[in-house]
Amino acid sequence: ASVQVEWDRWLMMGLIGFAVGVVGWLLHQFIDLISETKFSVAGRMIVEGNFGVAWIFTIGYSMLFVLVSASLVVFFRPSAGGSGMPELIGFLNGSRIRKVFSFKTMIIKFLSCVCAVGSGLPIGPEGPMIHLGGLVGAGLSQLKSDTFKIKLPILEKFRNPKDRRDFINAGVGAGVSAAFGSPVGGLLFAMEEVASFWSIKQSWMTFFCCMVSTATTDLFNSAFDGFKYAGEFGAFKEDKYIIFQVKRGISINLVAFIPSIILGIIGGILGAFFTFLNVKIRRYRSSVMKRIKNKRWKTACKIAEPVLIMAIMATISVFLPAAFPCTPFRCRLDTDTSSPQCLTDRRHPLHLEPNVQLYTCEAGVNINYNDTTVFYNRSYSQVATLMFVTGEEAIKHLLSRNTHLEFDFGPLIAILVIYFLLSCWSSGTSVASGLVVPMLLIGSLYGRIVGRIMVHMFGIHRAGYWTWIDPGAFALIGSASFFAGVSRLTMSLTVIMMEITNDVQFLLCIMTAVIIAKWVGDTITHSLYHALMEMKCIPFLNWEPVILHNKKDNVSIELFTAGQIMAKNPLILRSRERVADIAKLLLNCQHCGFPIVKEVEGTEIVCGIIKRPELNLIMLQEDLFESNEASPVDVPVLDYQQFIEAPKHLEKPNEGPVKEALEKYCHDEKYNDLYIDLAHYYGQSPICVPESYSLYRVYALFRTLGLRHLIVTDTSNRISGIITRKDLMGHSLEERLEPFVKDALKSEM
Amino acid sequence: ASVQVEWDRWLMMGLIGFAVGVVGWLLHQFIDLISETKFSVAGRMIVEGNFGVAWIFTIGYSMLFVLVSASLVVFFRPSAGGSGMPELIGFLNGSRIRKVFSFKTMIIKFLSCVCAVGSGLPIGPEGPMIHLGGLVGAGLSQLKSDTFKIKLPILEKFRNPKDRRDFINAGVGAGVSAAFGSPVGGLLFAMEEVASFWSIKQSWMTFFCCMVSTATTDLFNSAFDGFKYAGEFGAFKEDKYIIFQVKRGISINLVAFIPSIILGIIGGILGAFFTFLNVKIRRYRSSVMKRIKNKRWKTACKIAEPVLIMAIMATISVFLPAAFPCTPFRCRLDTDTSSPQCLTDRRHPLHLEPNVQLYTCEAGVNINYNDTTVFYNRSYSQVATLMFVTGEEAIKHLLSRNTHLEFDFGPLIAILVIYFLLSCWSSGTSVASGLVVPMLLIGSLYGRIVGRIMVHMFGIHRAGYWTWIDPGAFALIGSASFFAGVSRLTMSLTVIMMEITNDVQFLLCIMTAVIIAKWVGDTITHSLYHALMEMKCIPFLNWEPVILHNKKDNVSIELFTAGQIMAKNPLILRSRERVADIAKLLLNCQHCGFPIVKEVEGTEIVCGIIKRPELNLIMLQEDLFESNEASPVDVPVLDYQQFIEAPKHLEKPNEGPVKEALEKYCHDEKYNDLYIDLAHYYGQSPICVPESYSLYRVYALFRTLGLRHLIVTDTSNRISGIITRKDLMGHSLEERLEPFVKDALKSEM
Repeated sequence: ASVQVEWDRWLMMGLIGFAVGVVGWLLHQFIDLISETKFSVAGRMIVEGNFGVAWIFTIGYSMLFVLVSASLVVFFRPSAGGSGMPELIGFLNGSRIRKVFSFKTMIIKFLSCVCAVGSGLPIGPEGPMIHLGGLVGAGLSQLKSDTFKIKLPILEKFRNPKDRRDFINAGVGAGVSAAFGSPVGGLLFAMEEVASFWSIKQSWMTFFCCMVSTATTDLFNSAFDGFKYAGEFGAFKEDKYIIFQVKRGISINLVAFIPSIILGIIGGILGAFFTFLNVKIRRYRSSVMKRIKNKRWKTACKIAEPVLIMAIMATISVFLPAAFPCTPFRCRLDTDTSSPQCLTDRRHPLHLEPNVQLYTCEAGVNINYNDTTVFYNRSYSQVATLMFVTGEEAIKHLLSRNTHLEFDFGPLIAILVIYFLLSCWSSGTSVASGLVVPMLLIGSLYGRIVGRIMVHMFGIHRAGYWTWIDPGAFALIGSASFFAGVSRLTMSLTVIMMEITNDVQFLLCIMTAVIIAKWVGDTITHSLYHALMEMKCIPFLNWEPVILHNKKDNVSIELFTAGQIMAKNPLILRSRERVADIAKLLLNCQHCGFPIVKEVEGTEIVCGIIKRPELNLIMLQEDLFESNEASPVDVPVLDYQQFIEAPKHLEKPNEGPVKEALEKYCHDEKYNDLYIDLAHYYGQSPICVPESYSLYRVYALFRTLGLRHLIVTDTSNRISGIITRKDLMGHSLEERLEPFVKDALKSEM
Repeated sequence: ASVQVEWDRWLMMGLIGFAVGVVGWLLHQFIDLISETKFSVAGRMIVEGNFGVAWIFTIGYSMLFVLVSASLVVFFRPSAGGSGMPELIGFLNGSRIRKVFSFKTMIIKFLSCVCAVGSGLPIGPEGPMIHLGGLVGAGLSQLKSDTFKIKLPILEKFRNPKDRRDFINAGVGAGVSAAFGSPVGGLLFAMEEVASFWSIKQSWMTFFCCMVSTATTDLFNSAFDGFKYAGEFGAFKEDKYIIFQVKRGISINLVAFIPSIILGIIGGILGAFFTFLNVKIRRYRSSVMKRIKNKRWKTACKIAEPVLIMAIMATISVFLPAAFPCTPFRCRLDTDTSSPQCLTDRRHPLHLEPNVQLYTCEAGVNINYNDTTVFYNRSYSQVATLMFVTGEEAIKHLLSRNTHLEFDFGPLIAILVIYFLLSCWSSGTSVASGLVVPMLLIGSLYGRIVGRIMVHMFGIHRAGYWTWIDPGAFALIGSASFFAGVSRLTMSLTVIMMEITNDVQFLLCIMTAVIIAKWVGDTITHSLYHALMEMKCIPFLNWEPVILHNKKDNVSIELFTAGQIMAKNPLILRSRERVADIAKLLLNCQHCGFPIVKEVEGTEIVCGIIKRPELNLIMLQEDLFESNEASPVDVPVLDYQQFIEAPKHLEKPNEGPVKEALEKYCHDEKYNDLYIDLAHYYGQSPICVPESYSLYRVYALFRTLGLRHLIVTDTSNRISGIITRKDLMGHSLEERLEPFVKDALKSEM
């Protein structure tokens, strides 16, 4: 039987991978469809010189989609806004967050993301894709939807918290894999950033899930282009699954580490600034929202905000290119070069840069000689090449190698500033949005600027020791550094960069930049996700706690004991308890876990723990109540199945029918003489520690075992306190330990 | 202060990375020097037709090195033989294994590995390199050598089991990184295969360590060639750090998964067979060794075995090529092809295959036309190209793309059989050796055979939908599949393959083959390392235990409790204990941990645990003993420092001065009235669980927290038993649970 479950688990992983892959493909195709329509129509208008019409079309078209996107979120599921990453990470760390995993959230998230990203807001689809992955993992493995009242019996065995968490983890990994075409990166992302509990076995399954997901997305994306069948189903096209493929490898040398370190420092500082600004904007927004009393106005503001950003963005993308001159270039094909933009031998400009934007620039002509095209004469708009395309296309341009002079300082700096501010602003609005594409874009912009400076200083080298001075390569390092500076990812980021570029040669430089960016960033702020979790009050337990004394000195957690932070005199229940007493207890508190005690040899010792949902379920079954004289055989016992299938609303403290029943038990005298025997229901393996137990180890227990409650006992196994997850959060810890810090510091000396 | 320690830790990681990188470089250069000398000298002799001389030279030269290698191991440090992987994994899982980490082991391992691999035995340097990495990590971070009696005070803060383990882990990762030039792969290897305990913070540091190590090795390897300075220090040469670089990417399609699955199945079966054979040979060897009574003969046999293998190998490599005809080829340069061996357009044979071996074949001539070389006319020996070079070179040939017909079935099959048997045989002999290169080679051999069959069936396609039918690509998938079949690695293996080939395009196929090989292999045998651990009796706790009933039914561990497997009536100590009693206890058992009890309110409750080394240290200090009347202030207390610096021999039960002292205490009457107050010394945070605690959770506690002892108590906190790590090993579990299995199975129904 056990082997069967194992295979079912693998099968389920495969199914989740496939489903996430399909979702990723749909997302990609819809976004492509929306954005390509916009750019091609507007581009044609601009080439024809109809600026006004182009502007009106671009603004109208994009604003429409943003409007739809924001309305969906605001009216139907406010929690579907944003990337969903903080909620996901918090959930997998052990916190309970409502509505993160529901079918409705999934639909709204998908549609909102498609509209928002397709419209051209400076955001990316990766964050929502990751959340969608988690949603698919949760949904498929449980196949139980409260919205649809669906509940299949075949998956009974996976309906437990551990399996659910594992499948969500796998789904998250698959989401990343589908978003980037990076199966190993997805796995590592799930490991490094998302999961708090991990085992090797789980990672094998996640690996499989990520593989299936990537294969599915690539397969379908290769076959379809904006939902038009492109022929050759079954082929994996390179350009679909290696998004930013590097076509020309460059050997590096030791000197290349210097600019890598510089880029790392820039990435760390800018990343921290981005996080800081993002949090500031969010706080300011919520303070403004609080001041608006009228509910309708509030809703209107929430929808208007992203629309306003879109209007600014669209206006800039139409008019900014006109502020910069056209760049002419002239390439001699298949041989040497004759213009700085067309530098290396055998470079076919159309091949390397198929999509430089004309804007209003002259298309130029081909010059034929002996029946072959020898010269190619053309001009293009630098700004339009970066602004009048999707974010991904812009990144491709920035990462292209051997195009040392394709972009000048002016356009790069202008776009960097615009993108930095607008993407920072838009990421907190009420649309489903992610930040990966903006992060990569911002990073490659300043990377390219640094590269351009290097070219300015050391010149262009076509071969030999200095070939690595290529702005495209610096853009790559820069994008990794900014990503690291914001997200503080290291391993997964490096692998993702490797997988999306298919180039190992800059690996060491990327690693250097990533680690430096992380160091620098960590000394300034939290990572973005953790800052947001803090803002959203999600109790996340880090790997190691930090306790500050007088807001500066770091005090070692090893100096304290469990007894010093426990809540004394916790609410407890006896193994056989009066119904009225249980009801009073439940009504008068919001706690979720209650220790159970039993009298043995005269003392009341701890014997278990029971959770509120179970208690609620039991309390609703009046036939379980027994009078003081009844022999135990008269009373029915609930079986395990009923607990698994308990409706979700029982988890909430004191609502609806539960509240009514409890109030009845409190007031009706007859329940004073009725008892419940909890012995059949409580968990008999609670973890208990003595008061003198080291706080460091308490923390480790919570973190590695994912505990929510820990019972503290005295030497005779009598209960003396309880520690919950929230007691271990930074501020709470500091508050509780305040009286003991001085002594602890003294003892350390 | 805490921040300072943190930075010191990063610094130490950097230092370890650098040191491992240097070791990797030295290893590589020495091996190159030895093997290149051999092949170039012998090759010249063969070309001149002096077979006899060539044979004598090859045999003599190689046997000399193997002799040195084996003698070093046999005479100076027998535990330095083999790869050291099982010991390393066992150590990091929580077992105590002696002599794994000592300076002498390191030197012997290094020299033995250099000689054995350089000589041409069918083994690789990667396993020893990994062990060397761990050794460097242990050595540098502790800078304490019992061999040299060195002990620096500055690293005091890192001299604790946790930090030591972390540094060893990092060193292991760095070892892999240096061996393959694969920093991310090294990190993942340390995570997937080696480490049992892991945290995100540690992985960041390991990541950094791996990066430094790879950079160092690549840098030095690029600058030196067999210790000759090659100019341009500071350049990272591609061919040095992307070992098996794939120069020509090929798009795949869905059909390519079919042969990938087939290769995965072959890999799983052959891998399991390899493991099975390896273990069989080892068992047979040790049974033979047991029968040899004379000690000198035994030593001689141990040394003679690898020398014999070398003789066979050398003879084959000299004479086998003569059994197959020369293969002529003729290439038209820069244009089309004119011979099946020289297939694709623009293929420059010298560029693609610079080292095809002439053996006795004709070198041929270049044909000039219009001052440029147009035709190239030549012949080569297929077998010599694979056998008369180092293992790495052979793999490069097998992985080369666009060389569909370079090798025929005959040579491939012959070499596959020879390599399979000889590498399986040699891996257990007394030289320091690893199996990675042989595994990759064997895998690419059968991969190439499968590819050749595909070419036979479907023909050669130069472009389009079927280009992926390239024997070089199949060799790549095959090598990954065999590696996976033997080692059961998944994630790290995939990343390593990606990093050593610089090609993401076959990633999905490789992942498929790897997962299938793992599945197939797991149903047949353990992985090689785990089989060896079992053979060597290293107690390794898997992620999940398997309990078999009647040798076939899998019984869920969740059905049992802690009380059912605990050892009852464990040996205990009171908090204040008579010296004579402690001495008797220590002398009469080999246990390592003793629970401490204390009388509270009339019952003796558990209050801590003390380990043997600490007890030994205390027992040696007679001034700590107190008479019954002495007030506690009269007695000195040992401080923490003394425990940290306690000499290592105290860890062994009852040897030397400890034994003498203990015996004295037992027999001298005066110690009957002397007491020790253990309260200052015992650990006050032991983990205790009640008897009814679920066995599944007990296992999880041991595994996730790395416990060695767990105390089981009754409801009143009185001791009722103890569980140790060895109690949880498969056989021991089954034995202890035997009486309960029937009831458990009944209750499940």
